[in-house]
Amino acid sequence: MPHVSIKASVPGIGGLLATRPDTAQPLMLLAETLLRGPSPLSRGERELIAAYVSERNACRYCADSHSAFAAEQLDGGAELVKAVLNDPATAPISSRLRALLRVADEVRALVAPVSEAAIASARAAGADDAELHDTVLITAAFCMYNRYVNGLDTELPADPKHYRDSAHRIVTHGYLPQQHA
Amino acid sequence: MPHVSIKASVPGIGGLLATRPDTAQPLMLLAETLLRGPSPLSRGERELIAAYVSERNACRYCADSHSAFAAEQLDGGAELVKAVLNDPATAPISSRLRALLRVADEVRALVAPVSEAAIASARAAGADDAELHDTVLITAAFCMYNRYVNGLDTELPADPKHYRDSAHRIVTHGYLPQQHA
Repeated sequence: MPHVSIKASVPGIGGLLATRPDTAQPLMLLAETLLRGPSPLSRGERELIAAYVSERNACRYCADSHSAFAAEQLDGGAELVKAVLNDPATAPISSRLRALLRVADEVRALVAPVSEAAIASARAAGADDAELHDTVLITAAFCMYNRYVNGLDTELPADPKHYRDSAHRIVTHGYLPQQHA
Repeated sequence: MPHVSIKASVPGIGGLLATRPDTAQPLMLLAETLLRGPSPLSRGERELIAAYVSERNACRYCADSHSAFAAEQLDGGAELVKAVLNDPATAPISSRLRALLRVADEVRALVAPVSEAAIASARAAGADDAELHDTVLITAAFCMYNRYVNGLDTELPADPKHYRDSAHRIVTHGYLPQQHA
């Protein structure tokens, strides 16, 4: 049972957002900006970073949600996402994305400067300032969303179809559905 | 030197915000909502939670900034903030705030449900759903801001007067200065 009373028993972050529309609005505007706004990283790549960070943080709800969102927007689909979550070192992705996932895992694990080695690898693979910035900030943001969802002990959906339905909605309408109602 | 090029060499998060106005806007709207919007926790108490989490995360820039913001808005001023950052267990604060800082430190340290014991202590000290929710979400948000500031290796201000100037600006105008220009 979640640590606070959740409106309508919606699982994951959805219940928290429904219960607290005041904080939901800036939280979803941030997600929309980071994951769907202008960036040199594709929407699929950004959802993959979100899914990878959430998986490494053991946030089941966020990992499964953003894996579904990434799978819908990457050519490799669910197979590719699964390979990356299992081990970016062996997954069939670009050296640039692999290096950015290494940067992400450093940001996730410690509140400390990313190592010079990880930055140098990403630069060597072609990553620019904007890609490094967006990778660090998306990772940092999921260190927030993951703690919010797990810290308050929210529930998982009873039916895994929940993630596919969410993926369709997010990919079509984004994180601010009220703007598209 | 920061890992990405920073506009105008502004220290801490300020340089990142100036460099990337696209992500600055939702980041500051979130700070404004969490730290100054409606909440059963006072603005001073919320800045104190932000300062404490940042201190425990060893984010010098955020800890010194939010300590200054808390000191301006709490009766005990800088002395009280220093005592809390040193050890909430012995600081002259309410049992409710002490219990909420324990909740915060659990959220900060691990991406996992807050312990039943920490929740029970906070409830016994009078904390309600909104206070627990806001404590968890403020803490989670500073796990993001701290990683953004430290991960990209931003610089500290050369003159500590920077924090007092920021405190005056934030306490007077909030985190969205453009709205008050």
